[in-house]
Amino acid sequence: MSEQLTLYTARVCPYAQRAEIALAEVGAKYTRFEIDLQNKPVWYAPQVNPASKVPAVAYGGPEVPPDQPSRDSVKIAESLVLLEFVADLHPGSPLLPKDPVQRAQVRFFIDAVSNKVPANWFAFMARGESPDALISGLETIQSLLPEGKKFAVGDEFTIADAAIAPFLTRIATTLGNDIGVYEEGQGKKVYETIWKSPKFAKLQKYYENLTERSSVRETYNEQLIKDTLGARFTPKRNA
Amino acid sequence: MSEQLTLYTARVCPYAQRAEIALAEVGAKYTRFEIDLQNKPVWYAPQVNPASKVPAVAYGGPEVPPDQPSRDSVKIAESLVLLEFVADLHPGSPLLPKDPVQRAQVRFFIDAVSNKVPANWFAFMARGESPDALISGLETIQSLLPEGKKFAVGDEFTIADAAIAPFLTRIATTLGNDIGVYEEGQGKKVYETIWKSPKFAKLQKYYENLTERSSVRETYNEQLIKDTLGARFTPKRNA
Repeated sequence: MSEQLTLYTARVCPYAQRAEIALAEVGAKYTRFEIDLQNKPVWYAPQVNPASKVPAVAYGGPEVPPDQPSRDSVKIAESLVLLEFVADLHPGSPLLPKDPVQRAQVRFFIDAVSNKVPANWFAFMARGESPDALISGLETIQSLLPEGKKFAVGDEFTIADAAIAPFLTRIATTLGNDIGVYEEGQGKKVYETIWKSPKFAKLQKYYENLTERSSVRETYNEQLIKDTLGARFTPKRNA
Repeated sequence: MSEQLTLYTARVCPYAQRAEIALAEVGAKYTRFEIDLQNKPVWYAPQVNPASKVPAVAYGGPEVPPDQPSRDSVKIAESLVLLEFVADLHPGSPLLPKDPVQRAQVRFFIDAVSNKVPANWFAFMARGESPDALISGLETIQSLLPEGKKFAVGDEFTIADAAIAPFLTRIATTLGNDIGVYEEGQGKKVYETIWKSPKFAKLQKYYENLTERSSVRETYNEQLIKDTLGARFTPKRNA
């Protein structure tokens, strides 16, 4: 990777953390620019990402200050697109296996994460719907984990792990601290189910392996998530 | 690609057609097995795809009759996973460009298709909701098309084109034949907007390029779509 790479990101955002994890895994040199999602800079949507979301990357072009993006860099958005992009820029890294079948397993795992995790977590935390969909979604995820291996498709950390880690950490933090619009104590109860009960033993071990990984640990600020999501989703109980 | 490949598919299904198009593009030798989606074989879910959907692939293992799948073949599901898999099996094909930036553009286009096309089409056709989301979704797709090029990211046919073609053909067929639960004539009106009005000229030209492609044409049975979706979504008007 010889071109400059600027990542527009936000500590609070799980999608953005995916890209940060992948870049940390390959030891990429890049410029990190924090976007305040509550008060986005006016130049961000027109000059970097029309969808006005993070993460986004400006790749190539001249070296410029990140808040003055060049027209000559390529702009790339969407977290899963960026995971593949980082892997493509570093074809020698284990982020994506070489074998087509294993690559398909990585992508199938990511597809399952997309369908089973974010929306089900959000439905429980932010709308107070039943936690059953989240619990059964994580059962599906657990069923995909290989026996006796550290990560989603084997002993190497891949983009499948980068895709799920930011959600598992945030789910643990919010449930464990009872952060959500649901009835008081319900978050902690679901936390016990997922993080303590024997039926989730394989997922618990996987979670431990993920959170021991420096790329995951160093891109996650638990206090910030507690403060931000706590203020947003449990304002009355916290007041 | 030296291993055997069996594709479980269904003519009616747009997701399955994606895989058929990619396999046709690379000239793959494979065994095609039609699954009757209204009456699935009992062995299909337990032995091929637990989600019981098409497309799915059995790859490798011994040569066996497709209705007696071997335990020794790898089973792979999900249409977008399979598009990448076919490209990975044929790294020399243009299905995925070599350049990381162009690969990201292919995947960004596919992501936009996933978010903007199937659900919006279905909401209009099957639930009679406003067609505005479909129309604006296709405007977004059109905005991603490069100027003066034949396909989604350039002059080569890629998995981005394979991802959208089965939906554009079905949308044209259903709208053009007024197939849907909406008020009579509304489908044809939306058809005129998308396929005749100057504001969709770039998408119309792209559609023409897609449907001239033999991989698309030969995997699409328009009469079957008219009959099947017509019977399902306009039973009263047709009766």
